[in-house]
Amino acid sequence: MTETGTENDVLLERHGSVAVIRLNRPARLNAFTDDMGERLISLFDETDADDDVRAVVLTGTGRGFCAGADLAAGGDTFVLGEDPETGGTPPDLGGRVTLRIYRSLKPVIAAINGPAAGVGVTMTLPADIRIAADTAKFGFVFTRRGLVPEACSTWFLPRAVGISTAVEWTVGGRMVPVAEAHERGLVREVVPADRVLERALEIAEDLVAGTAPVSVALTRQLMWRMLGAPDPEVAHRAESIGIHVRGTSGDVREGVESFLEKRDPKFPDRISDGLPDLFE
Amino acid sequence: MTETGTENDVLLERHGSVAVIRLNRPARLNAFTDDMGERLISLFDETDADDDVRAVVLTGTGRGFCAGADLAAGGDTFVLGEDPETGGTPPDLGGRVTLRIYRSLKPVIAAINGPAAGVGVTMTLPADIRIAADTAKFGFVFTRRGLVPEACSTWFLPRAVGISTAVEWTVGGRMVPVAEAHERGLVREVVPADRVLERALEIAEDLVAGTAPVSVALTRQLMWRMLGAPDPEVAHRAESIGIHVRGTSGDVREGVESFLEKRDPKFPDRISDGLPDLFE
Amino acid sequence: MTETGTENDVLLERHGSVAVIRLNRPARLNAFTDDMGERLISLFDETDADDDVRAVVLTGTGRGFCAGADLAAGGDTFVLGEDPETGGTPPDLGGRVTLRIYRSLKPVIAAINGPAAGVGVTMTLPADIRIAADTAKFGFVFTRRGLVPEACSTWFLPRAVGISTAVEWTVGGRMVPVAEAHERGLVREVVPADRVLERALEIAEDLVAGTAPVSVALTRQLMWRMLGAPDPEVAHRAESIGIHVRGTSGDVREGVESFLEKRDPKFPDRISDGLPDLFE
Repeated sequence: MTETGTENDVLLERHGSVAVIRLNRPARLNAFTDDMGERLISLFDETDADDDVRAVVLTGTGRGFCAGADLAAGGDTFVLGEDPETGGTPPDLGGRVTLRIYRSLKPVIAAINGPAAGVGVTMTLPADIRIAADTAKFGFVFTRRGLVPEACSTWFLPRAVGISTAVEWTVGGRMVPVAEAHERGLVREVVPADRVLERALEIAEDLVAGTAPVSVALTRQLMWRMLGAPDPEVAHRAESIGIHVRGTSGDVREGVESFLEKRDPKFPDRISDGLPDLFE
Repeated sequence: MTETGTENDVLLERHGSVAVIRLNRPARLNAFTDDMGERLISLFDETDADDDVRAVVLTGTGRGFCAGADLAAGGDTFVLGEDPETGGTPPDLGGRVTLRIYRSLKPVIAAINGPAAGVGVTMTLPADIRIAADTAKFGFVFTRRGLVPEACSTWFLPRAVGISTAVEWTVGGRMVPVAEAHERGLVREVVPADRVLERALEIAEDLVAGTAPVSVALTRQLMWRMLGAPDPEVAHRAESIGIHVRGTSGDVREGVESFLEKRDPKFPDRISDGLPDLFE
Repeated sequence: MTETGTENDVLLERHGSVAVIRLNRPARLNAFTDDMGERLISLFDETDADDDVRAVVLTGTGRGFCAGADLAAGGDTFVLGEDPETGGTPPDLGGRVTLRIYRSLKPVIAAINGPAAGVGVTMTLPADIRIAADTAKFGFVFTRRGLVPEACSTWFLPRAVGISTAVEWTVGGRMVPVAEAHERGLVREVVPADRVLERALEIAEDLVAGTAPVSVALTRQLMWRMLGAPDPEVAHRAESIGIHVRGTSGDVREGVESFLEKRDPKFPDRISDGLPDLFE
């Protein structure tokens, strides 16, 4: 992939308690570069570290969400060297991005404002909720380029839409219309293109209203990690630690008392003070 | 949680071959106490041990199914001591209940007769089928109390409704209307509140009619255990044992012969005579 | 199961680049014999080895798809000896068939041309797409014969239709109407019986048009194997190898260049030249 690009290729904006991470190369339909991948990772580090951010919206500038890997290098685009650190297989950058989103301590809403192809669609799979513009379409185009799916999409996609649809879309590689993506469960809602960011912000704000930030972070971690766990006993161990540790917290006292007093809670605990390890 | 309560707080009733386990503190909307949790576990031991019970319906008395943990102790409700046996993290009681239901040898139908919150809804997740009254609603309220989800719900819920809905409901913690719960697959049917038990009994009776009890117990075990298994070869090993052991049983002879003779089967094998271990 | 039968009991036909594997004992509604199971396995070896085959359709001759195990041996049908090689539990033949289909390097479409029971329906579960005739119905009848589900169906079925439906259908064992099978996601489309093969061939051809055969084989492997993987990092490792190895291939050069030149690709790589091991 190209190494050119600037910090402005991915922007971080704030809308109240919601951070908007915006792919921002509209002249190239936000085609993905290595720089953009690294910057996405560091922006999710920022949103995790900032207690004032309660949720993240991932979107793009212009009429496309992301056209996939930037193909400016032509047939050499996917010629990767060995990993400079290990001398072995270099870790797929798309996978590093999606693993970072998977580990986000804040819920993530993908606001897919237009067509998304290749890493442009796979990067949205660890989002908790995806909504799309009525102008969107989705291309898991890897087999049509001689590649294989990446960004951990072979793990995320069958869990989002079922194995049958996942194989159909990735083996076939055709462009999937937004209506089909909606029907199969890839996206939750389809809205007019000029409404998609506004709607994503509404969803994000509603989602976290009245909740304890530490509880949200732990809950999101638990759900995604248990999605692949071999049996419910793994969840039992992690949740038992969570209930035990949280049971004596100021948050629980406030949560129960505010409920009994029928008032809005004011949760005292902050993520930046540290989270318990539920997976010891 | 409160330690008060009586044996009558959870009742075991019989309707023909179906056992009804009934949460029975209607004045408290069946709010969950430690005693109720322990009693639920022992009642599922009873239904497993009784060959005359072919299926179990879990329901509640009155207008609510279960309001969640009894909050009579206020902000101290979730202050748990160390585990008296190990000195370490006490196992979550909700999780002990759902693991017991997960291991039930009889199919379980949840007849959710009204609102269900916290452990009141998570305890129903290992049921095979959930139906709900049109008066029901569902609250995965943990993040609004400063807690985390429990009762192995972080494992069960994404497998019931998908990861996106599971995160949305548990991170957000709002009350989910019964129509949404139906649309997302949490409940199979919505019926008038005064019909929910009757309908659950119908489903339970139809489900086991004409089936071999030992086959039902093994099939239920296999399905739930394979739900988290890493690959189909794990199932291949367990099923190969099952087919081999059952192939010489009186049940199979009767099952095949009654089918060929176009008559109802009378299966001789009983669960109480012991089940083969398919997971050695 | 019976050991009688001939090579003609399962046929291999070619329709352009699509292989049709056809159960062919119509006088017995294609009831399954040991010979048929062994032959199915070897025919999938053939379709994998033949670079001219891009996809496989599995169907049956006549008005039934497959009536399940041939019960000509009556109550002794499922009396299996010890495994001649190991002296222990013999591997379930249905499971050997479905594991072979699971590992197919070509996508598999099941064209279920009529009723399917027992192994007749479970053998279709590792197909990527199932379509059915309007005359089809489905019986997971094992508990009504005193058996347990086989062919790795306890792993495949909950991943196809969800745990609740999977338990309901296999614990209960009733015949499932085609409309219900469609609604619950077991089959993708329902078509008139005389159109089911034609429609499956269309789907198969469309699915692989314009794709690189090696990419299709690797993608199918990745998707099915990651379906049970414990976390996305497993996918990350396998995909990183795939992207790295494929990135320097002639296929990727052709895939990217043909895309940029807006022409149809002509992919040079052949499966018979060997596939990289992504799961080392």
